[in-house]
Amino acid sequence: MTTPREDGRADDELRPITITRGWLDHAAGSVLVEFGKTKVLCVASASEGVPRWRKGSGLGWVTAEYAMLPGSTHTRSDRESVKGRIGGRTHEISRLIGRSLRAVIDYEAMGENTIQLDCDVLQADGGTRTAAITGAYVALADACASLDRMQTLTGSVAAVSVGIIDGLPRLDLPYVEDVRAETDMNVVMTGTGSFVEVQGTAEGAAFSRSELDALLGLAEKGCADLTRLQQEALAR
Amino acid sequence: MTTPREDGRADDELRPITITRGWLDHAAGSVLVEFGKTKVLCVASASEGVPRWRKGSGLGWVTAEYAMLPGSTHTRSDRESVKGRIGGRTHEISRLIGRSLRAVIDYEAMGENTIQLDCDVLQADGGTRTAAITGAYVALADACASLDRMQTLTGSVAAVSVGIIDGLPRLDLPYVEDVRAETDMNVVMTGTGSFVEVQGTAEGAAFSRSELDALLGLAEKGCADLTRLQQEALAR
Amino acid sequence: MTTPREDGRADDELRPITITRGWLDHAAGSVLVEFGKTKVLCVASASEGVPRWRKGSGLGWVTAEYAMLPGSTHTRSDRESVKGRIGGRTHEISRLIGRSLRAVIDYEAMGENTIQLDCDVLQADGGTRTAAITGAYVALADACASLDRMQTLTGSVAAVSVGIIDGLPRLDLPYVEDVRAETDMNVVMTGTGSFVEVQGTAEGAAFSRSELDALLGLAEKGCADLTRLQQEALAR
Amino acid sequence: MTTPREDGRADDELRPITITRGWLDHAAGSVLVEFGKTKVLCVASASEGVPRWRKGSGLGWVTAEYAMLPGSTHTRSDRESVKGRIGGRTHEISRLIGRSLRAVIDYEAMGENTIQLDCDVLQADGGTRTAAITGAYVALADACASLDRMQTLTGSVAAVSVGIIDGLPRLDLPYVEDVRAETDMNVVMTGTGSFVEVQGTAEGAAFSRSELDALLGLAEKGCADLTRLQQEALAR
Amino acid sequence: MTTPREDGRADDELRPITITRGWLDHAAGSVLVEFGKTKVLCVASASEGVPRWRKGSGLGWVTAEYAMLPGSTHTRSDRESVKGRIGGRTHEISRLIGRSLRAVIDYEAMGENTIQLDCDVLQADGGTRTAAITGAYVALADACASLDRMQTLTGSVAAVSVGIIDGLPRLDLPYVEDVRAETDMNVVMTGTGSFVEVQGTAEGAAFSRSELDALLGLAEKGCADLTRLQQEALAR
Amino acid sequence: MTTPREDGRADDELRPITITRGWLDHAAGSVLVEFGKTKVLCVASASEGVPRWRKGSGLGWVTAEYAMLPGSTHTRSDRESVKGRIGGRTHEISRLIGRSLRAVIDYEAMGENTIQLDCDVLQADGGTRTAAITGAYVALADACASLDRMQTLTGSVAAVSVGIIDGLPRLDLPYVEDVRAETDMNVVMTGTGSFVEVQGTAEGAAFSRSELDALLGLAEKGCADLTRLQQEALAR
Repeated sequence: MTTPREDGRADDELRPITITRGWLDHAAGSVLVEFGKTKVLCVASASEGVPRWRKGSGLGWVTAEYAMLPGSTHTRSDRESVKGRIGGRTHEISRLIGRSLRAVIDYEAMGENTIQLDCDVLQADGGTRTAAITGAYVALADACASLDRMQTLTGSVAAVSVGIIDGLPRLDLPYVEDVRAETDMNVVMTGTGSFVEVQGTAEGAAFSRSELDALLGLAEKGCADLTRLQQEALAR
Repeated sequence: MTTPREDGRADDELRPITITRGWLDHAAGSVLVEFGKTKVLCVASASEGVPRWRKGSGLGWVTAEYAMLPGSTHTRSDRESVKGRIGGRTHEISRLIGRSLRAVIDYEAMGENTIQLDCDVLQADGGTRTAAITGAYVALADACASLDRMQTLTGSVAAVSVGIIDGLPRLDLPYVEDVRAETDMNVVMTGTGSFVEVQGTAEGAAFSRSELDALLGLAEKGCADLTRLQQEALAR
Repeated sequence: MTTPREDGRADDELRPITITRGWLDHAAGSVLVEFGKTKVLCVASASEGVPRWRKGSGLGWVTAEYAMLPGSTHTRSDRESVKGRIGGRTHEISRLIGRSLRAVIDYEAMGENTIQLDCDVLQADGGTRTAAITGAYVALADACASLDRMQTLTGSVAAVSVGIIDGLPRLDLPYVEDVRAETDMNVVMTGTGSFVEVQGTAEGAAFSRSELDALLGLAEKGCADLTRLQQEALAR
Repeated sequence: MTTPREDGRADDELRPITITRGWLDHAAGSVLVEFGKTKVLCVASASEGVPRWRKGSGLGWVTAEYAMLPGSTHTRSDRESVKGRIGGRTHEISRLIGRSLRAVIDYEAMGENTIQLDCDVLQADGGTRTAAITGAYVALADACASLDRMQTLTGSVAAVSVGIIDGLPRLDLPYVEDVRAETDMNVVMTGTGSFVEVQGTAEGAAFSRSELDALLGLAEKGCADLTRLQQEALAR
Repeated sequence: MTTPREDGRADDELRPITITRGWLDHAAGSVLVEFGKTKVLCVASASEGVPRWRKGSGLGWVTAEYAMLPGSTHTRSDRESVKGRIGGRTHEISRLIGRSLRAVIDYEAMGENTIQLDCDVLQADGGTRTAAITGAYVALADACASLDRMQTLTGSVAAVSVGIIDGLPRLDLPYVEDVRAETDMNVVMTGTGSFVEVQGTAEGAAFSRSELDALLGLAEKGCADLTRLQQEALAR
Repeated sequence: MTTPREDGRADDELRPITITRGWLDHAAGSVLVEFGKTKVLCVASASEGVPRWRKGSGLGWVTAEYAMLPGSTHTRSDRESVKGRIGGRTHEISRLIGRSLRAVIDYEAMGENTIQLDCDVLQADGGTRTAAITGAYVALADACASLDRMQTLTGSVAAVSVGIIDGLPRLDLPYVEDVRAETDMNVVMTGTGSFVEVQGTAEGAAFSRSELDALLGLAEKGCADLTRLQQEALAR
């Protein structure tokens, strides 16, 4: 017999998800996305022109930066601007978000424009990178609309974490489960069910092929649910 | 006859002010403060112990950091963590906030505890530093309460900007007035009407003693209004 | 009908692998590992004591740093020490190598000792991170032996890249295939066939679940081959 | 009855002021300014052209940098170049000096030329920023003359510190008074008696409006004296 | 009577020297040079064009960077890219190598091309900078040949260390002698016996003119031997 | 027949040398040293205690930092604190000054005290590093006296530049000769005529052994003259 989840969810159930568009007044797209207590502000800034190495190509560019506010974690974390360097984890997640969004971009349809996504974690309770990707997609869609270039998007992306806790595969881990996970996986998928990124890590014991398969199944379910919620938010 | 303000306010009137306490779940104090469209998240993190140079003194410590999210400005601004250095303006404002709050601290009553204030601008529309001070005081009060050391506070502080636009002294400048101001002044005052900081700068022409006196008068009025709003927020 | 590989290998065949132990005179473990033209020098330095946060725990520590020499790439790349910051990719790979090795460490058996792995790419021709992990494990084993603490190792790890090129899943990609890959995956496995890390990225189109399954199968084959080569090297 | 000042001055009296022009051989303007034991070397370097963002505007540019030599303070202070970052205080003062000088510049009359002021504190005994501004103005005037563009200057600026010590407002504080000041204010004024900057800080207790008024009066007196000394130096 | 050298060499005898050309596959020139146990990988990268300040001059450019791998020393040394700054010693040696090579370059014959030398110490056992210069010259010659511009070289350079140990002048010091040397000198010479650099340092007692003369004599002998070995390597 | 020197000096003649002790009020030793137009402020700060790695040894420590003020050069040079890194040349000279002074220190006689020398170039006209060493020795002597530990000094050091201009060996090069020198050498010697450092560089053609000998002879003469001037300054 197994322990139920602390928050009462089924193993394949997402936390309550909120996607609030237009959270700021100026930006081309701005979304406050919440996965339970995790809150990430995703802001898309559109600008004409592209980085120097891409000039004259007729192609656009999309890039992303992720950061955590110092007060977002249970124990305050130092500000990277004060430390004078960006940590490995921050770099890694910024790169992941950028790659994930670029998977659904038609650079030619975009024209020589740049969209910069800033994903700032206001409160962290597990799954900040997957919330960031899921919310950033919606902010990106709003920015494409503001440029009157919706055909830039060839599809949608969403992301979710999965993990094995006490031997059981579970969907969308809050912090309290994340720290106890034996295996932790982040999966980014398109709205049509293809994989964009799979990043699985054995935190404790290495995992078997069949455990891997179970996790991939859960992620497919979670990403499908998130895709539906993104569509509903964009329809509002 | 003079031009009225774009937003219809009287020259000595504040913008709509909102002070939302408990905006996050974890932090000792967390306040979302809004001066019109300016939104600043002020988070107070309390921790036992003090910096090394203060150990064994029996005294506490309060410090502050200010930053702007890249998407908070009309045109996206680069992230200081990415640039690898903190700009002069950021340093200057962080130091101002810290000094302002320390003016109402009784370090002995505080005991060897540290409270760190993080003021992150989510949306900037003028007056971010004065909103930060005004909100940070409320977050600080909540943090002192969470430490069960309310006697740490010897008073309250609030801050407001004033300036001369088209020859007229005005209170609480939004961005559109701020860029046109001939003189710009930030004033920090205690709840009992004493001055903690006065920082006035001639942006265009130098200003006369009588203009300076008029600005100080407006600031006294604005800080008194803000003090009342802080008290109401803390009473809720 | 499909294009054969430029170097004539079968799709599930590794490049020629060389693992040379004791390449340097001083270090506790030093291995020159070659995957075809990719050459990585893996040096394990053992020292007594552990980082401050781990002192008194009775547990050891293993960490890793990855870097590329400027002349290792086809076009010279700038030195990170000269740029004054470590790039995101370097951080990411250093963290991956460290995590992979720590999956087979018994910290208690290790005692309060630290082993630092340095993986410096002397020549890069694709698969540098997987070569680094595969070689670093051998250097680590030599370092454990030099500490007379072979029981520190609870197993072995090896890593290989797989990818989809022209629609075909292939094992151990050289640079010329890597740049053309639609999907690129790095897989780290234990000697007993469990997964430690799975990192798959759609470079072009997103990939389906069946493509993912085919890639995982190839990686299982490649890691098994590498495990055997590691054992042979350690037996010499 | 009140304590007299340690150095025997009246409360509204400046320390002995020396302004030595042409202290170096190469620079367009070079002034050693002394406020008592405080010695600041102010060097103005003129160059053709302006920063990129100002090119083609027909307008000039003036900027300033402030620094303290490590041996200038009673206890040696670390070199900022060695620490690899400029501290908040240094940034703040550099910005203040630049703003103060720019208040008397006619950019159009200046043409597309740049003047850079370097204010290096050789010995610090309180009031280094106000000495720097006062001396930098003289070096700037010499540099304008060397460019044969005296019409660049629309007026003069001088600066002085004032403060409340033991309840008494006093002018031009040396270090020994500065550290004991309850309130500390730096005031920058034009030669015609208008204010360019007012920066007052409560170090201990907050200050009342009437104390503020008294300090402003003292500063007006001190700046008028300094303006006269600048004119005498420039007439030599 | 004097102590013989630990490794049995005569006082004016070099360690076994190996110069292996073409150690890497991609680079214009790549040499693994060994002075006893000291191993330095010298890679020459040729590129069209020159730094901005030299554009349009018709002249080429040669520059060098030196670094030590962390595991190259007896006790692991921290990576400069991780520390975020290059140490004084590294800077000094990089500059020395560059100057030494530039002594035999005809920039006009070179045309507007740049050759960058990277000298990475794989194992350090004394004399790393002199081995680097000696090997870098050979890599440079190969790079000039690859550019089909052998006339770029107006001569050859080699370098060797000399020192006084227990009162005796000795040639080519390994680490064990280097740490005990009272005086330590690095000498760079052309193939025709002229001096390019002389850098002598009293580590213990200051040295007399006659000791200096004896050291210069030993260095002349050693550089002549190295010149011959370079010629043999280039003839292969 | 040869061109006489622009300033009319004989080839073996120093520029006018001024050594002013006690130039600042606070520091243990402070010397303004002038070699012609070259002005360097040398400040010695004494403090109790030594760096961590030397604690409990009973031995003292001496270290030095060199820097140029931005306005010291003919064309303003950027501030290293603003660039955020210290250049190779600065590092190199700081290390040279430190090593030179440490050649005449008896660490045991010094006790566990530290003397830090700061050599800041106020005006540069060639020979700044040799002026710095010559002046720093005098400041160091004053600092030893202030610690009442004159026996710390086992001798004196002075330094001078020599070079070959138009084929002629010359002593103490000003900037105008320095830039034209074919060979440039800095020599540091003790007061008793032994060598502490010899650093010779071929700027143009490599130099012969006989040219080297001539330069060493000139340096011996120049250092003897400087030693006498140091003694006279210390006797005042």
